Parts: sequence; structure tokens; C-alpha cells
Amino acid sequence: MSKEIVQIFDTTLRDGEQVPGCKLDREQKLVIAERLDLLGVNVIEAGFPVSSPGDFQSVEAIAKLVKNATVCGLTRAVKNDIEVAADALKYAKMPRIHTGIGTSDSHIKFKFNSNREAIIERAVAAVSYAKTFVEDVEFYAEDAGRTDNEFLARVCEAVIKAGATVLNIPDTTGYCLPDEYGAKMKYLRENVKGIHNAILSCHCHNDLGLATANSIAGVLNGARQIECTINGIGERAGNTSLEEVVMIMRQHPDLNLDTTINSKLLYDTSLMVSSKMGMMVQPNKAIVGANAFAHSSGIHQDGVIKNRETYEIIDPAEVGVTESSIVLTARSGRAALAYRAKIVGYELTKTQLDQVYQEFLKYADTRKEVKDDDIHQIIETSNIDLQSIS
Amino acid sequence: MSKEIVQIFDTTLRDGEQVPGCKLDREQKLVIAERLDLLGVNVIEAGFPVSSPGDFQSVEAIAKLVKNATVCGLTRAVKNDIEVAADALKYAKMPRIHTGIGTSDSHIKFKFNSNREAIIERAVAAVSYAKTFVEDVEFYAEDAGRTDNEFLARVCEAVIKAGATVLNIPDTTGYCLPDEYGAKMKYLRENVKGIHNAILSCHCHNDLGLATANSIAGVLNGARQIECTINGIGERAGNTSLEEVVMIMRQHPDLNLDTTINSKLLYDTSLMVSSKMGMMVQPNKAIVGANAFAHSSGIHQDGVIKNRETYEIIDPAEVGVTESSIVLTARSGRAALAYRAKIVGYELTKTQLDQVYQEFLKYADTRKEVKDDDIHQIIETSNIDLQSIS
Repeated sequence: MSKEIVQIFDTTLRDGEQVPGCKLDREQKLVIAERLDLLGVNVIEAGFPVSSPGDFQSVEAIAKLVKNATVCGLTRAVKNDIEVAADALKYAKMPRIHTGIGTSDSHIKFKFNSNREAIIERAVAAVSYAKTFVEDVEFYAEDAGRTDNEFLARVCEAVIKAGATVLNIPDTTGYCLPDEYGAKMKYLRENVKGIHNAILSCHCHNDLGLATANSIAGVLNGARQIECTINGIGERAGNTSLEEVVMIMRQHPDLNLDTTINSKLLYDTSLMVSSKMGMMVQPNKAIVGANAFAHSSGIHQDGVIKNRETYEIIDPAEVGVTESSIVLTARSGRAALAYRAKIVGYELTKTQLDQVYQEFLKYADTRKEVKDDDIHQIIETSNIDLQSIS
Repeated sequence: MSKEIVQIFDTTLRDGEQVPGCKLDREQKLVIAERLDLLGVNVIEAGFPVSSPGDFQSVEAIAKLVKNATVCGLTRAVKNDIEVAADALKYAKMPRIHTGIGTSDSHIKFKFNSNREAIIERAVAAVSYAKTFVEDVEFYAEDAGRTDNEFLARVCEAVIKAGATVLNIPDTTGYCLPDEYGAKMKYLRENVKGIHNAILSCHCHNDLGLATANSIAGVLNGARQIECTINGIGERAGNTSLEEVVMIMRQHPDLNLDTTINSKLLYDTSLMVSSKMGMMVQPNKAIVGANAFAHSSGIHQDGVIKNRETYEIIDPAEVGVTESSIVLTARSGRAALAYRAKIVGYELTKTQLDQVYQEFLKYADTRKEVKDDDIHQIIETSNIDLQSIS
């Protein structure tokens, strides 16, 4: 049975860029957009054209450049926003306008000082107006995570009737638990007339560390698009990490879901985005962190040396990392020391290893890491009769 | 109805420290242990005493220092490991030995070149031996995430009979999906005789970005301890983030679960661990990242200025962050500009704001962030007739 494809909607250049200290110039945005296209994302959200003249120009330039992906621009449910976005996207091979409005009671009351019926009217008007410019119109129900399901279903039904091709169900504040977010998608699948005419999309924020799990819960309940960013960057605690959701689907073939992403480009793309945005990735970041495939404890190193799969589920090469590393520290055991000693030229007998290991521990206890150079020094000062193989 | 307490087992100083480049000296470990005790964790895993003389001494010193928490030492299912751990813990008010062995077929075959029956015997022998030193013995079934549930239940039953007080079910390779990990806990709750004599514990790794979601799935299915680290540090992609699971339970009162953590110390503790370990926290890290409470887009800033809860689910003060920040960038709208302009001394009329906002956008398009100093310059060069309130 062939797998169902989940669309990857990359918003690194829009929601991802909404970060203090993260401003990209146009040239940088173009380089990233080109790379995202090569990576195989299905949609690139290029910006929010009405927000500033610079953003308009960037969206326009990206629309001209991108070869394969749909190029999308964000708008509020405001006529001028939609006109400006349509203008910025006019050169795109496959343009998409992404319009929407807040649907939770909190947003309706405090942001819009409005009521439910008026919000539905504005939503429908925005989608209908966007449809006069482009065929592909995505609607976002902002703060859907905190929106009552019954009202959300009414909004969805109305905008599908108005021609929306994609329904974005954002957990704007990152509040949902996975079961809750999955149940919301299921409810919409089961209660919105015409739902089969649109794609449900997950847009999750990571305020409680659950963006990835929520997105996966969404696709397990019928969503077929995930909105995400490289390295999970974005406002506050960021968005769903593209690399995580892609690799979850790839590592769990039973889910029968896949994406069009070329995973071998993930690591390089992560480095590129991190360096251009000046947003560092913590070493313990899943998939793309500097330590994601580094083993430093003795128990783990011993296991990996015997058989990689003992502690590694992903072959690092699959995401473009050259090899998993065995890093020597005071937590390393004899197996790791023997392994690295052999690499740098010493084949140690068991007795020699015991002796060198004691020296190694004394040395390692005072250092963060023991490098190959240090191994020479440790072995040569440990006073054993060496049969060097080098 | 009073909430059930989920024990927080902090392993920052053991699994967290198993990171290349993360070596702490004894003094640093003591400072962190003292802070963890103050934070309100229930168990501090202080180290792996047999691994090196330095680690032994650290565990011993932490055992002497800690006032409230249980102090725990890791061992393999090896007699000497257990003896050394018991020795290191002899001054602890509440000592716990954490012993165990791999139970997945992959670990049994490749790590131990053994078979299932022999593994159960070693597990029981280790727990029984540890019980001769301390009352509180936690057993870990390494790679439980990939262990067949029926065999795992047999192992659990046997070690409970031998006196294990806590059963640690680690997803060692970070492979499980939340539903799968939750189902494993449920299976054990329903199929292990004597399960009520022990606490089930979640120990999840973040290789696919799911450690937090898996731990929550675990407690929703009956586990009552979570093993975690500050900032989610640890080998490879790290462990479950303490701050995330704690705040999920606090933000979701319907779960009827809570911890004994003083959340107001979370941010400071994160900074302390990050600086002592030299392991930086990415700005978009949930709860404790520098941007976790920063709003930079116009739509969001406008919402937060009108009502904080529009975009913020956690009051930053709850985790020890002084205030949420409104950071001005090219994505900011008029509301945010007016808000900051007022703070620095300019009360702008609507017309003035429109005029200044155009200048602001031109200026912001060339910069990552617009600081308060810049606002003075923008307003003063924008040629409007000012009624300064300063």
C-alpha cells in the first residue's frame, strides 16, 4: 500500500522570521527560499506582504524565483491586505493567499470587539475576495486551539463554501495537549459538510514543548498538511520543527504517511537557516543539534560500538550528518577508549587497556572531553609496554 | 478534589551530564544539587558512582548536602556497581539505588549476548542485592520502549517481587510515539501482578522531539514519576525537559496532576545550569528560552497590548521571568510602536502615529530590532509637531 503524502508548508520566512533579532535581508530570504524548494517542501510561506515595503518586495522576489513549491503570502481578513498579497504573488507559478481571523471567544472579544456571526461574515468575505485573485486560498482560524469546536466547524463549513482549499487550525498559543488537538481535527473531519473539498492543516506552537506531538496527532486524525519551520524557530517558543515531523513519519512506516522532503538535506538546511538568521540551535536539539548523534556515556558507547542500532534509531546519514560520534569523557568506558585508541594507532591488550583506562579516568575527570591528541599523551605516559600498530 | 502528585526525578547531574562538552566539577555539581533541592524536585540522580573516582566523590558530597530530596545513584546490574553506589550514598538522608539492565531483544542480543531468562535472573539478582543496602531501589528496563510488552511485564513482576519500589520504563532511543508509550504504561498497570507496590516512572529521550509528549502520555496512563533534566539536556537530543512537563500539568488543571516544584525558580535554574554546563539554550526553547515570552509581530503585539491572554497562556512571572516583552521589528504594527513610544515619553495622536509609523517601517526594514533609543531618533527626524509628555 503506497503511503499518503502529508504536505509540508514551510513558514520559516514568515512565522519563523517573526522573532526578535531574526531579521533577514532580501538576499538571505531568496537563498533560503531556493533551498526550501530544493529540500522538497510543498508550500513556502514567503511573508506578510502588507506588513512593510521590504516584506512585499521579498515575497515578490521569492514568487519569481521558486520553481516547484507553491508560494504563499499571509493576510488578515482585510481587503487591502489581500490586494497587496495578490500583487506580491503575481509572478508565482502556484500562488496561495493565506487569509483568516481569530475565532476563539478571547480573540473575538479582546482583539476584534466583535461577535461570532460578524466573524463568520468577515471570514467568508475575505476568502471570497481572495478567490477573485487566486484559485488556492488557505483560511486560518486564529486561536483555533482555544475555539469551541462547534463554532469552529461552522466557520470551516462557511469558508469551504466560499472556496477555501486549505483549512489551517492553529494552536496559536501552544496550549493544546496532543489528544485534544487530535480530537479537534477528528471533530472537524466528522462534522464539517464539504470537508473533503479542503485539506486540514496543523499549525502548532511550542509554548509547552508539544508542537511536534500535536502536529503528529493532527495528521493521525486526518490533517494532511503541517505548517512548520526549520529548527522550529518562530515567535515565542517557536513553531513545529520541520525536521522532527518529517523524520517521525519516516521512522514510523506503520503510520503509512510520508512527505516529499529529501531528508539528506535537513542538516545542511538547518545550519544555513541558523547561520543566516543568527538563531543558534541548541546542541540537544532533536535531529539537527550538534550532539543529536553524539554518544558520550560508557554504557551507550559500548552498545553503539557493538551495534549501532542499540542506541540509534536514525542513521545520521539519512539526515545528512556524516557519522555518529564516539566522544570520550569521564563517563566513557573501556570499550570506547579501546575503540578510539585503535583509531589513533594503538591496539591495546586487555591488561594494557585496564592500565591505560585508570590513567584515562584521572585525566578525564579534570576535562570536559578527551581528544585524540590527549590519547597519545595518556598512553605514552602510562608506562606500558606498547605494541603500537601505527 | 486534591491533585495527585507526580514525582519529579531530576537527572540533570547524571543523564544530563552525559553530554560531550558538559563536564561539571564537583563544586558546580554541589551548587546545582542545592538549587534542585530548593526547586522542589523529589529525587536527584547525582551520578553513576562506579564510572570514575570523580563521580563517586561528587555523589558522596551531594548525598551529604541535600536536605529534602531523595539522592539516587546509577548502577548496572553488576555487584561491584551496586556496592560502590551504596558506599557513595551512605550519608544520604534518603538514598536510592537505581539499577537495571537492557530488556529489548536488540539489547539482549547485541549488548549482552544473552537470552530473556538469563536477563530476568540478572535483574532480580541486582534488585535483591541493592535491597541489602537500601530500602528504596529503582529498576530500569533499558530500551523498554522497544521491548515486547509481554516480556517487559514479566520483568517488572519479577523485580517488584524482589523489592523494587520504582519501575523505570525508558524509551532509551527516543523512538516511541505518545500513544504507543502511553499504551505501554497502561499495559503494565493492567498486567503486572503487584504493580500497586511500585511507582511507574517515565524516562523519555528526545530524538524525535517527543520526550515531553511521551512523558505526559505516561502519566495520563498511570505513571507517577517523570525523569527529566533542566533545559532537557542529556545524551544526543537530550531528555524530557523538567520545565515543560511541570508547566503542562500546571496549565492543564483538568488533568488533576501536579508536582511539588516551585515554578518561580524555573527560569533562574535554567540560566544557572546553562551557564555552569556551558550548554546554551536556544532562544525558541519552550518556557525558558530567551524569546519564550517575546512578541515581535504586529498582530501578536497588538493582541497582547489589548489583553495578555490573547497570545500568552503562561504568565511569565509564574516561571520567574519578570515580564513579557514587546520587541519592535519590521513586523510590528502601530499599536506596538505607540505602546513603546509612550513608554519612552511620546504620546502620539493617531495622525502623528501614522506619520511616525511610515518612518519607523523604513528604519526597521534595515534592522533586526528597533530599540528605545532608535525611537527617539525616528520620532525626532519625522518632522511632526510633538506634544511630548516627558
